[in-house]
Amino acid sequence: MAYSGLEKFFTAETVAVIGASRTAGKIGYEIMQNMCCGKFAGNIIPVNPKAEQILGEKCYQSIKKIPGQVDLAIVCVKAEEAVKVYQGCCERKVPAVVMISSGFGEIGNVELTKKLEGLIKKYPKTRLVGPNCLGVLNAVGGIDTLFLPGYRQGRPKPGNISFISQSGALGSAVLDWAAMMNYGVAKFVSYGNAMGVKEADLIDYLGEDDETKVIAVYVEGVVNGRNFFEALKRNSKKKPIIVLKGGVTNEGSKAASSHTASLAGDSAVFEAALKQSGAIKVDTLTELFDCARALAKLPKPRGNKVQIITDGGGYGVLTADWVAKYGLLLSKMDKKNLDVIKKVVPPHVVLSNPMDLTGDVNNMRYRVAVENALADKNVDMLIVILLYQVPTLTSEIVETIAELYFKWKKPMVVISVGGEFSEVHKKALEKEGVVNFTYPENAVRALKALYDYWKMHG
Amino acid sequence: MAYSGLEKFFTAETVAVIGASRTAGKIGYEIMQNMCCGKFAGNIIPVNPKAEQILGEKCYQSIKKIPGQVDLAIVCVKAEEAVKVYQGCCERKVPAVVMISSGFGEIGNVELTKKLEGLIKKYPKTRLVGPNCLGVLNAVGGIDTLFLPGYRQGRPKPGNISFISQSGALGSAVLDWAAMMNYGVAKFVSYGNAMGVKEADLIDYLGEDDETKVIAVYVEGVVNGRNFFEALKRNSKKKPIIVLKGGVTNEGSKAASSHTASLAGDSAVFEAALKQSGAIKVDTLTELFDCARALAKLPKPRGNKVQIITDGGGYGVLTADWVAKYGLLLSKMDKKNLDVIKKVVPPHVVLSNPMDLTGDVNNMRYRVAVENALADKNVDMLIVILLYQVPTLTSEIVETIAELYFKWKKPMVVISVGGEFSEVHKKALEKEGVVNFTYPENAVRALKALYDYWKMHG
Repeated sequence: MAYSGLEKFFTAETVAVIGASRTAGKIGYEIMQNMCCGKFAGNIIPVNPKAEQILGEKCYQSIKKIPGQVDLAIVCVKAEEAVKVYQGCCERKVPAVVMISSGFGEIGNVELTKKLEGLIKKYPKTRLVGPNCLGVLNAVGGIDTLFLPGYRQGRPKPGNISFISQSGALGSAVLDWAAMMNYGVAKFVSYGNAMGVKEADLIDYLGEDDETKVIAVYVEGVVNGRNFFEALKRNSKKKPIIVLKGGVTNEGSKAASSHTASLAGDSAVFEAALKQSGAIKVDTLTELFDCARALAKLPKPRGNKVQIITDGGGYGVLTADWVAKYGLLLSKMDKKNLDVIKKVVPPHVVLSNPMDLTGDVNNMRYRVAVENALADKNVDMLIVILLYQVPTLTSEIVETIAELYFKWKKPMVVISVGGEFSEVHKKALEKEGVVNFTYPENAVRALKALYDYWKMHG
Repeated sequence: MAYSGLEKFFTAETVAVIGASRTAGKIGYEIMQNMCCGKFAGNIIPVNPKAEQILGEKCYQSIKKIPGQVDLAIVCVKAEEAVKVYQGCCERKVPAVVMISSGFGEIGNVELTKKLEGLIKKYPKTRLVGPNCLGVLNAVGGIDTLFLPGYRQGRPKPGNISFISQSGALGSAVLDWAAMMNYGVAKFVSYGNAMGVKEADLIDYLGEDDETKVIAVYVEGVVNGRNFFEALKRNSKKKPIIVLKGGVTNEGSKAASSHTASLAGDSAVFEAALKQSGAIKVDTLTELFDCARALAKLPKPRGNKVQIITDGGGYGVLTADWVAKYGLLLSKMDKKNLDVIKKVVPPHVVLSNPMDLTGDVNNMRYRVAVENALADKNVDMLIVILLYQVPTLTSEIVETIAELYFKWKKPMVVISVGGEFSEVHKKALEKEGVVNFTYPENAVRALKALYDYWKMHG
């Protein structure tokens, strides 16, 4: 299999940090710090010929001097030295090397690039992530080669979205943002110049990875388009793959070529190939994670008919607009179910789609409306809008919504509308396992991705 | 002038609350509470025939029994009673009445609606906001007729964006959100059934209001389209007006008709009229406030050429994509200015557009790049992207960016990328007066609105 040999990037038990440093702020120190003080429970071996100990760990003179097996080497010495170190890693059969070092193709250093290429070919059993990258984060096992300190660069909680990014800085900023948003991440890889492990390898690996339910990809261009799209095709049958491409316009494409030295290529061709591959294309980072969150959590919908239940008419109207704009349909609930609701709600409730429970709503009204919508065979997906400003709505709405969602196992999302008081409830609902959004357009976009994925792969 | 007589809704010194209550949770209590415990410094007079005092204020039996002038009456008794109260207000020449009470046209009560209509015509000197509304919030003077308690419904800090909303619940949720986002608001009006004061009157009033720099409008449909569009035309010359319309699709339009009982009308016709009126049309609530914030703060741009400066290549690429998608241009900086930058930055910095200061950026590098871009005659608008994850970037970047922005007075926005550490700096920059965004698409959308406004009205 194409992905064989990538396991140790995520499951290594003995990790050598080559170029480990005692000086705070240096890459070799920050990596040591993050590995030693994080969740990683294995052995960390600093390599630095000038030091005895770093952060309490015994230092070795070189990779060759380390006794026993090394599963993963993190290389953060200068480019020329890094190539020599890589040879050492290959010779002692280290299965996984993350090369943080820059100074290769991205600055036009052809000679060093060729040398490294030669070693990669000569020693196929050693796999290389990088060079010129941030490397790998495994939110579960704790492997963390990111050289940014935790206070500047948050690490997301463990989850089941894996994210690979051609751009290291973008990947790092997005992880930081995901940590703040409380989105869970399984594995993250910034693969830089992709001289060894390429997008396709990572997609193949994550396609088999049980902890990964959805693969999110940021890419500007790929060296081998055919391999990339074939990997998408192979794996999007197994799990959703969502792709954000930078450089879809001429202007962005030019910027991409000076950024990752990749030919962004013809955007229309890329888009067509992406569609054929069965992956989901998105236009923004927000969409990337909105769609990923929905696809990671929600079950398969039977169709594209959406019911909206709201306590604020205006939000119902805006959401209905987006349902139409994204080409989904508004469902027509069964009269039998509507009659059940009608019996227990006051006459000013609008029993249509959107169903407007109005500004004097209470929890009971939501309970009967949501339950009957989830039970309705004409409703494929449900959007519940909650304006928490209404004083008659009490905080137990969180448990009510979560209870019904898990009882009925139908695709359902919540739009939690408002400010700080709403955020408290939004977070509570997320914790209970219900997917939340702040704005109508994001919620509908996510359901559209859910529908599209299962239409292609159902 | 059409707006004459609206001043007292915002500047009243004596306010009567008719239907004031001693029972927490009741509308008449919450309004008393918000008026008594907020910023309002004038006289608050509760009217309730059954109480002696409410929240320490002496109660009166009826509006007629109050000695002296009443500037504003807030009516929150039942619909039938409200009409009688309104007559009392008219007879004693109260210039401004906010009628919170519902039970009129929105539930098909023709008789009461006609009665109220008759009074409105008979007493033109008394102006009515409502019925079936939340009423008025003046963030500066403290008039606050919103009946939602502060812990559920935040009030934004004073600012220079005024917001009018046909939907009360949407308006309230958006205010709550704006408070959390730390967006400043001048005046807010939820005008409900618009039987007295209509959109056009409010736009005329806010067009003259010195505290309002930008008018943001949420509307589903208007009773008198001609008046509405003429008011937009008259006032969009004076200041930017940004309009979000709910019900732009058939599905949303149907929902709107059962929500605000307004004919959302033909969306294409509305859009064409909006364009002709010189107002800015947006598609989401986020855009409404993003464009409003930019238009309230930024000076007129000389053209549509945008320079991007970033320390993360991927964000530069995505931003360049959005510049192209929104039909703006990437500027080409003067060689003279680029040479100044070239002298002081390392050779791996990409001196193009986007200008990529790269992941080892420091404050000095941003200073020289931003200053020379702002000084450049080929640059009409500047986007500065800040990934704060980079350890070499210190917090003084806030002062540096703010200093240069105020020195050069050229349209400039910042995209503050990342999580919690970034948010601290984003808030600091906002406090210094620099407009910030989290995502590229929002920043570019706002600059596009800025350019469009001045192209139409410059």
